[in-house]
Amino acid sequence: MGAATSWAVTTDLSGHGDARRLDGDQTSKVRAQIKGGAAKNVILLIGDGMGDSEITVARNYAQGAAGHFAGIDALPLTGQYTTYALDKKDGLPDYVTDSAASGSGWATGTKTYNGAISVDINGAPQRSLLEIARANGLRTGDVSTAELQDATPAVQVAHVTDRGCYAPSSTLAKCPANALQNGGLGSITEQLIDARADVTLGGGATSFNESAAAGQWSGKTLLQQASARGYQVVTDAAGLAGVQKADQKSPVLGLFAPGNLPVRWIGPAATHTGGTEPAVTCSPNPKYLATTPTLKAMTTKAIDLLDRTSGKGFFLQVEGASIDKQDHAADPCGQIGETVDLDEAVQVALDFAKKDGHTLVVLTADHGHSSQIVYPNTLTPGLTRTLLTADNKPMTVAYGTAETGGSQDHTGTQVRIAAYGPRAANVVGLTDQTDLFFTIRDALRLDADKPSPAAPVVENVNVMEGATLKGKQTVRVTLDTEPAYTYIELNRGGTWLTDNTKAPGSSNAGKKPTLVLDTRSYPNGSYQLKIDAVGIDGRTTEKLIGFTIANR
Amino acid sequence: MGAATSWAVTTDLSGHGDARRLDGDQTSKVRAQIKGGAAKNVILLIGDGMGDSEITVARNYAQGAAGHFAGIDALPLTGQYTTYALDKKDGLPDYVTDSAASGSGWATGTKTYNGAISVDINGAPQRSLLEIARANGLRTGDVSTAELQDATPAVQVAHVTDRGCYAPSSTLAKCPANALQNGGLGSITEQLIDARADVTLGGGATSFNESAAAGQWSGKTLLQQASARGYQVVTDAAGLAGVQKADQKSPVLGLFAPGNLPVRWIGPAATHTGGTEPAVTCSPNPKYLATTPTLKAMTTKAIDLLDRTSGKGFFLQVEGASIDKQDHAADPCGQIGETVDLDEAVQVALDFAKKDGHTLVVLTADHGHSSQIVYPNTLTPGLTRTLLTADNKPMTVAYGTAETGGSQDHTGTQVRIAAYGPRAANVVGLTDQTDLFFTIRDALRLDADKPSPAAPVVENVNVMEGATLKGKQTVRVTLDTEPAYTYIELNRGGTWLTDNTKAPGSSNAGKKPTLVLDTRSYPNGSYQLKIDAVGIDGRTTEKLIGFTIANR
Repeated sequence: MGAATSWAVTTDLSGHGDARRLDGDQTSKVRAQIKGGAAKNVILLIGDGMGDSEITVARNYAQGAAGHFAGIDALPLTGQYTTYALDKKDGLPDYVTDSAASGSGWATGTKTYNGAISVDINGAPQRSLLEIARANGLRTGDVSTAELQDATPAVQVAHVTDRGCYAPSSTLAKCPANALQNGGLGSITEQLIDARADVTLGGGATSFNESAAAGQWSGKTLLQQASARGYQVVTDAAGLAGVQKADQKSPVLGLFAPGNLPVRWIGPAATHTGGTEPAVTCSPNPKYLATTPTLKAMTTKAIDLLDRTSGKGFFLQVEGASIDKQDHAADPCGQIGETVDLDEAVQVALDFAKKDGHTLVVLTADHGHSSQIVYPNTLTPGLTRTLLTADNKPMTVAYGTAETGGSQDHTGTQVRIAAYGPRAANVVGLTDQTDLFFTIRDALRLDADKPSPAAPVVENVNVMEGATLKGKQTVRVTLDTEPAYTYIELNRGGTWLTDNTKAPGSSNAGKKPTLVLDTRSYPNGSYQLKIDAVGIDGRTTEKLIGFTIANR
Repeated sequence: MGAATSWAVTTDLSGHGDARRLDGDQTSKVRAQIKGGAAKNVILLIGDGMGDSEITVARNYAQGAAGHFAGIDALPLTGQYTTYALDKKDGLPDYVTDSAASGSGWATGTKTYNGAISVDINGAPQRSLLEIARANGLRTGDVSTAELQDATPAVQVAHVTDRGCYAPSSTLAKCPANALQNGGLGSITEQLIDARADVTLGGGATSFNESAAAGQWSGKTLLQQASARGYQVVTDAAGLAGVQKADQKSPVLGLFAPGNLPVRWIGPAATHTGGTEPAVTCSPNPKYLATTPTLKAMTTKAIDLLDRTSGKGFFLQVEGASIDKQDHAADPCGQIGETVDLDEAVQVALDFAKKDGHTLVVLTADHGHSSQIVYPNTLTPGLTRTLLTADNKPMTVAYGTAETGGSQDHTGTQVRIAAYGPRAANVVGLTDQTDLFFTIRDALRLDADKPSPAAPVVENVNVMEGATLKGKQTVRVTLDTEPAYTYIELNRGGTWLTDNTKAPGSSNAGKKPTLVLDTRSYPNGSYQLKIDAVGIDGRTTEKLIGFTIANR
């Protein structure tokens, strides 16, 4: 359906047994879904703020009360998990989590405080599933409809003490110890680049326009840095469709919006009188252009790029982010459209997993949210809106945690977790958000302590310290191991002049990268070669060589 | 714990893996819980209004966020089910159910409208699990902390078009077609007596003080009727403890309060300013006296009375009713105490099932409710209250669906369903409330169409129509089959004089009941014997014999 402008045919539900969802005893079917062993691949899908109430709101509207989502409702094994955060001061429970603490929980297995991005309550970085998977040689992906710096995508690639530390400037202000110039790991965006997932797709282009304030990329924008470090940057659906390959040499970075991606559906927000006003229907968002890939398109492409018949498998996280954001805004059509958007992605993941046979798919939420279904055409002390559903009946959705203009807030309820594939049984019963880390770690047989590969060793450079060069020269570097990439820069007094990603004829390939220099393009004098060999896990060896250019 | 006056020791949750609930891969454990076959017994426990949010509120307060309920959280197989009702007018979904429609759903497998007690949207009675189980020769029980006429206990024993039809007067007013004097099945209380579960325990004594307005019990109170029909009526914990046996000859009727049973815990209700006031703790309710059995005590006794090593098994429904009622009242301590009360009963059921090995235990809710956990020490447009939990941390509970003094209302969210034992896998995934009927029916291998046993046939009475009696006489009745009981009444012009439950030396035993009469106690003239032989399924044969007393 588009945006429920036509109604589903609701069959008669009033006879004995008419509303059943099962067609008989499902014991054997459920038993057949209990699979042990290991998973080659894991696809973790997150509906941000998608509590049971939010799922039901969306199902009622889009499918009818007796309908079901082909993705969300099709995962065979189900349970509930707790989502609480910790108080940073005393380490005791904080009953309502935000997306940062909750995401850190499943990404790292460590409970932490609201606002933390994969650091513990003391601010110490905790290794994420994506980082561990990459260290273990798996391919990795991180997909969201939000800014890529937003908490849920960030927890897999960054470690900062405040979720607001998107870019160098905000990091210096909010997480000074994390800033590069203070010896930290840098902003979320910079750490995202370092994390070097094979596929990173979402919004958040704006932060990439800031420049690094320290380190080897100082003065360059984060987007320039990403390009220089081999990322294939794409900015629209066509660009994404054109990507043929994504790997550590050429990871894909999709930046499809300055901030969050637009939502799929729009409609009137809840108000103090909305519940008793005539029922409304949702409309497609005219700002959602064909140039923006849907979550389904991003998920499909990510799986295509990560799936290889040979070699190790992949870990992919996919977030439907704006269920939460539209719930914050008391916008039922917004949150429903995003749930439908996520459902399409879940279908893609399930279809792949069923064909593949070795893929664990997990779907859950990071926390519950405000929206509640109340008696039709009623008002509450808060905000309400009545929608005309796929059943052609009124459904009134209430938002009761903030006033008009405020932000409706998260709730502390346990939420649904559902799964398919090897080890999916680990979501059954009551678990905690942090259990999910261990379930995925163990399903993929990851060694969480596996050291990141050592930085490559620069074994030889054909330009010696103090050498004098003239004419056309090729700087040849030899490394001991295959790096992620090697950057060979020519500078004078620290000012960049060229590098092997720019200079024609140069190479960034394998263990023997080169920089082709025509020294006659530069005035005679003292120069420096800066060689940064970056390993598969982001560790870098830097070598500086001073030399002189002396042409006639 | 009493009412959380002392705090649980919260262990450190801040280290890597500290908050895990699993101790490793649980695939084998879950697989071991997937059992097919049939169940001998089913215990269905209902937390009225106990959505996922209500469970989390109670767990956080009573056990701490990282704690778990030994009953509620221990059921190994879990899922979600939909609870919507139908609109009586058009048969289309009504997104927020009440306890009547939802209970009718699982009790009968038929979706119906809000207010309906086990009738379909056209008002046609739908057979309940308890009735079917009884017709199939199983023992049956119906236990609640509410009035026994309240929707959840009522759906197993009665069929009325409006849940308010507790007693003859309200039935004539609200469900005239159901009234006995209009040829209906009678009020909920009268149908409860007819349903003749072996064990019926709860509140609601008040309705039993009304008198039947028609039929064979006309003019007698419903309590007199119950006693006359063989019920052992008990009214307090000691009385219940003293019951030795419960069967179709002498079913147990426990009436432990005029209305609903008192709640276990009390505390300040939510108000417009409660969220930012100092955190409070809950206290035991001084009105909860030792004379009132807890839900645990009622459940334990019900199981003791229903469980027999020989013969067919039992079906028992147990309701923790006031989670809902206290949520309506925006009373967090009230709803938490009732959840703890229910958890104790779930533990009893689980313990029995584990020992027995052939018992299916199902725990679920009839619908979600208003209470939400919001950020600590905050206010909302509605009502809030901050509690100091077992973690010694503040938890703020918000109620946003009604104003001060109003009734907080049900919500339409899908809710948790969890199970243990044979066929428990039928709760996994997404099901509907009506699926539960079929799950239990099939687990117990019940024939839903099995005709109720025919009414007993009166084969012989030793007093002929038109006879003349004098002196001391014994009226002897012979039946073809073992009845539930037989009532032999002496009346004159319709006025009751005595019967075989009152007259010394008379008997109500088996196929040969007797009424011992000294005719000299009555003036000479015309009299009538009214013989009502009631079968195991409540069907009655009535025989009237006119005769004359003629002493000197």
